[in-house]
Amino acid sequence: MLACLDLEGVLLPEIWIKFAEKTGIEKLKLTTRDIPDYDELMQGRLSVLKEKNLKIQDIQDVISTLSPLDGAVNFLNWLKSEFQVIILSDTFYQFAGPLMKQLSYPTLFCHNLIIDDKGVIVDYRLRQKDQKTKAVKALQSLNLKVISAGDSYNDIGMIKQADAGILFCPPKKVIEEFPQFPVATNYDEFQQLFIETKNRLLSNA
Amino acid sequence: MLACLDLEGVLLPEIWIKFAEKTGIEKLKLTTRDIPDYDELMQGRLSVLKEKNLKIQDIQDVISTLSPLDGAVNFLNWLKSEFQVIILSDTFYQFAGPLMKQLSYPTLFCHNLIIDDKGVIVDYRLRQKDQKTKAVKALQSLNLKVISAGDSYNDIGMIKQADAGILFCPPKKVIEEFPQFPVATNYDEFQQLFIETKNRLLSNA
Repeated sequence: MLACLDLEGVLLPEIWIKFAEKTGIEKLKLTTRDIPDYDELMQGRLSVLKEKNLKIQDIQDVISTLSPLDGAVNFLNWLKSEFQVIILSDTFYQFAGPLMKQLSYPTLFCHNLIIDDKGVIVDYRLRQKDQKTKAVKALQSLNLKVISAGDSYNDIGMIKQADAGILFCPPKKVIEEFPQFPVATNYDEFQQLFIETKNRLLSNA
Repeated sequence: MLACLDLEGVLLPEIWIKFAEKTGIEKLKLTTRDIPDYDELMQGRLSVLKEKNLKIQDIQDVISTLSPLDGAVNFLNWLKSEFQVIILSDTFYQFAGPLMKQLSYPTLFCHNLIIDDKGVIVDYRLRQKDQKTKAVKALQSLNLKVISAGDSYNDIGMIKQADAGILFCPPKKVIEEFPQFPVATNYDEFQQLFIETKNRLLSNA
């Protein structure tokens, strides 16, 4: 049985927000809540980085001072001992890298930044659209039972596609909109829901 | 970029063989080289376990005294820092489990034993036929570039399907039959081949 897990908001803090806080760059605090068009948001972020002359190494240096959420390392270690785990995230490998080390490098599928010879981030490339849902579908085609878990709208596709889903500390709006999914508000509850969900899927099998 | 890695012969010893040595049960030393029909071989193994009254817990106790191959832990830690890693193995979760702990639980796709309430292994269930090749294909459909690596005939499918392949300490016959694939004879060479292969795939991209 496979657990497909979101990364930011579940194991790590929101990287752009934390990066904005650390560097004091207000414009980088904008999210899809402020600018719903993702490409517009990302192009804006890249312009800010260029304007501030922040290269990939500078950014990674800041990101490597961040930490996983309290309790995330223990939770992930437990999860790996009970499930096969794949992290499905809409972040970029080059951003997550320094933090993945602190999580002992679980398997991560996400996206890539395009970086030139001088370390300037010139663009970004989504690996594929709606990658989380597609990944769960592809993994199910291998006769794996999948439990998906995440915190926000971009996780709903993979949660619906999975054999079962769990929400972890989601915004109130997400809970109201998707009352069919169980909600964990801390890692103890999250662990308990994974155990219960696994047992339910096994007894249905 | 994703590394799909075989388990036994690459990171772990051959579990059945080691188990046979530890317990002194000669009949369990038979492999597909002796009994080419896999189902016949497995049913034979299960009868021996039944005859000796070996339950899953007894077997796991023996297996937990085994160790990964010398250098495997370091190699895998390096590999995880440079690639996303999924282990594709034709072993069983219940056998590999005690050894996966020593490898810090990398993501593993393999097969299941059917165990009754008393801990007796009553049968086995392949997750799917030719699962390694199918897994690589499914992962490529997610726009992941895959490098597959293994040591034997059951790895050739996934090596051919992958964007590139590497053989690790294969039998002479396999080298002769598949001269198109580079061969590593130790972890240093294996690491070097992964780096070279990655660079080649990136420069072609």
